[in-house]
Amino acid sequence: MTTALAQPAVKLIVQRQFYTFASPPNPMPLDSGASLGPITLAYETLGTLNSEASNAVLILHAFSGDSHVAGYLSESDTRPGWWDTMVGPGKAIDTNIYFVICINILGSCAGSTGPASINPATGDFYALSFPMVTIGDMVRAQKHLIDHLGIKKLMALIGGSVGGMQVLQWCVAYPEMVRSAIPLATTGRHSPQAIAFNEVARQAIMADPEWNMGDYYNGPGPTHGLAVARMIGHVTYLSDESMREKFGRRLHRSSLSFNFSGDFEVESYLHHQGKKFVDRFDANSLLYITKAADYFDLVREGGNLLINPALAGVSFLVISFSSDWLYPTYQSRDIVSALKKNGSDVSFCEIEAQWGHDAFLLPNERLHGLISGFLERIHHEYCV
Amino acid sequence: MTTALAQPAVKLIVQRQFYTFASPPNPMPLDSGASLGPITLAYETLGTLNSEASNAVLILHAFSGDSHVAGYLSESDTRPGWWDTMVGPGKAIDTNIYFVICINILGSCAGSTGPASINPATGDFYALSFPMVTIGDMVRAQKHLIDHLGIKKLMALIGGSVGGMQVLQWCVAYPEMVRSAIPLATTGRHSPQAIAFNEVARQAIMADPEWNMGDYYNGPGPTHGLAVARMIGHVTYLSDESMREKFGRRLHRSSLSFNFSGDFEVESYLHHQGKKFVDRFDANSLLYITKAADYFDLVREGGNLLINPALAGVSFLVISFSSDWLYPTYQSRDIVSALKKNGSDVSFCEIEAQWGHDAFLLPNERLHGLISGFLERIHHEYCV
Repeated sequence: MTTALAQPAVKLIVQRQFYTFASPPNPMPLDSGASLGPITLAYETLGTLNSEASNAVLILHAFSGDSHVAGYLSESDTRPGWWDTMVGPGKAIDTNIYFVICINILGSCAGSTGPASINPATGDFYALSFPMVTIGDMVRAQKHLIDHLGIKKLMALIGGSVGGMQVLQWCVAYPEMVRSAIPLATTGRHSPQAIAFNEVARQAIMADPEWNMGDYYNGPGPTHGLAVARMIGHVTYLSDESMREKFGRRLHRSSLSFNFSGDFEVESYLHHQGKKFVDRFDANSLLYITKAADYFDLVREGGNLLINPALAGVSFLVISFSSDWLYPTYQSRDIVSALKKNGSDVSFCEIEAQWGHDAFLLPNERLHGLISGFLERIHHEYCV
Repeated sequence: MTTALAQPAVKLIVQRQFYTFASPPNPMPLDSGASLGPITLAYETLGTLNSEASNAVLILHAFSGDSHVAGYLSESDTRPGWWDTMVGPGKAIDTNIYFVICINILGSCAGSTGPASINPATGDFYALSFPMVTIGDMVRAQKHLIDHLGIKKLMALIGGSVGGMQVLQWCVAYPEMVRSAIPLATTGRHSPQAIAFNEVARQAIMADPEWNMGDYYNGPGPTHGLAVARMIGHVTYLSDESMREKFGRRLHRSSLSFNFSGDFEVESYLHHQGKKFVDRFDANSLLYITKAADYFDLVREGGNLLINPALAGVSFLVISFSSDWLYPTYQSRDIVSALKKNGSDVSFCEIEAQWGHDAFLLPNERLHGLISGFLERIHHEYCV
C-alpha cells in the first residue's frame, strides 16, 4: 500500500559552497612529504552559527559521500542529501539548534580537489600526478575551512566508516578543537581483510585497459573496472544475514537462464549498484580514498594515538552495528578501551541491526535516539 | 630451524587416467535440457579395490582442484597432490585399506571435458558453446565412471566446499550407491552472499576485453580479470581473524609507498595467488563452475531433497569450521537437521579453526582423527 508521506511545508534548500586555500607559494604539507595547493573544498552548511560559535557540528562523510548531507539543492530537486533522515529542522541532528557543516573530502570528486581536478600549474587533469593523501591530510584541509568559518572548537564531530576515521583523526590531531565526537561503524586501524577488499577493488580498476594508468579523462574511463570495484564494495556493506533477508535466492527472471547473464536478484542488485556508481564517481578518487583508508592506523608502533591526556576533555559516543563485518564491533571496543585510559567520558553502544555496514546510513530509531540524546547533553553542558 | 623431514622410503606414484563415455549418438542429458558428449573424465586411484568392490572411497574436489589428490605423478615430481596430508598409506584416508578415487569435475580444465576442450563436432574449442553444467550433471558424469569401475556402492564419499556439494548431490541422486558420506565446509543451498562473491568474480573476468566473449584460446586470455577473480576468492577463503594472524598490517617493503604498487603483505599475498592461478586455471572454467555452485540448492520449492527415507541407510559425518564465513556452521547445521529427519546415523562436528574456509584443506589433527575414526567404523560395519 502506498500512502502519501507527510512533507514539510517548506523545502529545506541548501547551497554548495567552496573554499580555496593553500595557494602557491604556500601549499599544504602532506603526510607523504609532498605538498598540495591550491586546495578547494566543497561544503554545505545548515542552521545558524551562534554568536559564540559554539554550536557547530561537523559531519564527516564516508568513502563515496559528498557535502550534500541533507535538504535539497533547489526547489525542483527531488532527491534529498545522503543523511536527510538524520539531519534537519527537528531531526536528531537538529538544524534549528546546531550549525551543521559537511565537507567533501580531499581526493574526492564532488567539488573538492582530487585526481579529477585540473592542476592549475599544468592546465591538465591531475590524474595520477595527484599526490597520495591520508586521512590526516583530509582532516588537515578541513581544519583550514573550520578556521576560516571562525570556529575555535567544534561542539561535535560525527561520521561513519571512513567518516568515523576522520572523526578519530580530528580528535588525535586537534584535541583542543573538539568538545565531543561520535565515531560510527568505524575502526582505529584498518584491518588486513578491509585492506584486501580495497586492494581487489583497486586491481579491478587498474586491470581495465581504459584506466590507462589513470589518464582517462578525455575518454570513457575504466567503466567496467569501476563497476566491478563498486560491486565488491557493496558485498562488504551488506551481510550474509541481510542478503538472505533482502534477496534470498529469488530469481529476477521466471526461470534459470543457464547462461552468464545473471539469474538471481542479488546479482541484479550488484549490477545496478555498479552501473549507478560509474555515472557519479571517479575511478581515480576510489583509488586514492581507499588507499587513505588502508593507511589509517592510530595504533601504530610509537603507541596508540587514542591514548592521550589531551583527549580527557572530549566526550565520546562510539557506536557499532552487530552485523557490520567490515568494521566489526570488536574494533569499536578497541577504540573505547583506548579512550577510557584517558579518563574521558566515553559511551559505547552496539546496535542490533541486520543490515551490515550499511546500517549506519539507514533510518534507525535507536541510532537517532542515541545521537540526539548525546548532542542535547553536550549542547546543554557546553552551550547553554 | 629447518630439520630434515622423514620421507617415506618409497615415493607413492600415481597415474592420471581417462575415461570417455556418452559419445554420440548417446550424449549425456544435462539438467538444463541440453546434452553433452563425448565426455572425458580424468581420474586417479590409490590403493586396491577389494574383491567385493566394497572399499571404495570417492573424494570430490573443490572448485579449483583436480584429480591429483595425493602422491606424485613421477619419481622426479616434487609437489604432492592437494590432499596428500590426508590421503596415503597409513594416513587418515588409508590407501592400504581403502581404494581411493578422485575425479576431475566436468567443466574443469585439468583433463576432464570443459569449455577449454575441443568440441569433436567442430574441431574448435567449446568456449561458451559448452553447455551450462550443474552439480547434478557433474555427479551424473561421475556415476558413469563409478559404474565403469564396477563399483555398486561407495563405502564413503568425502569432499569439501564444492566437493561437499557433490557429496550431498550423490546422496540425493543415488542413495542406494552410498554407504556413508562426509560433507566438509559446505552448504546444501548456496547463499546470496556466496552468489554475490561468485558474480563479482565472473564480472571481473567478463569485464576483461581479452575475455572476448569466452573466445580467447588463441590469444593471451583474460589474465587480468582472472587474477582479480582469484583474489576475490582468496579473501573469502581466509577470515578476518586468520588475516590478522597471518599478515596483520605488516608491510612487504621498508616503508609506505604512497603510490598504488601495493604496501601490505596481504596485498602481495593476493597478487601472488592471482598470478599463480592464471598459470594453471581456465577463466571459462571458473565461470562455469561458480555458476554450478550458485545453482546448487537442495532446499528447493518442491521440498528439502535431503529429507528422503532412502537416505536412512547412509551414515553421515558433517564437519564445519568455526571461522568459515563462506559456508558458515549454521549451513552445516541445516544439513544435519534435515538428515536427522530420515532417522539416519548423523554425526556433526564444528572444528575450532582460525583459518576460515581454507581450514578444510590444511593439516588438522582433529579433522584427521574424525575422518579416520569414522571410516574405520564404516569399514568395520560394511566390509569386515
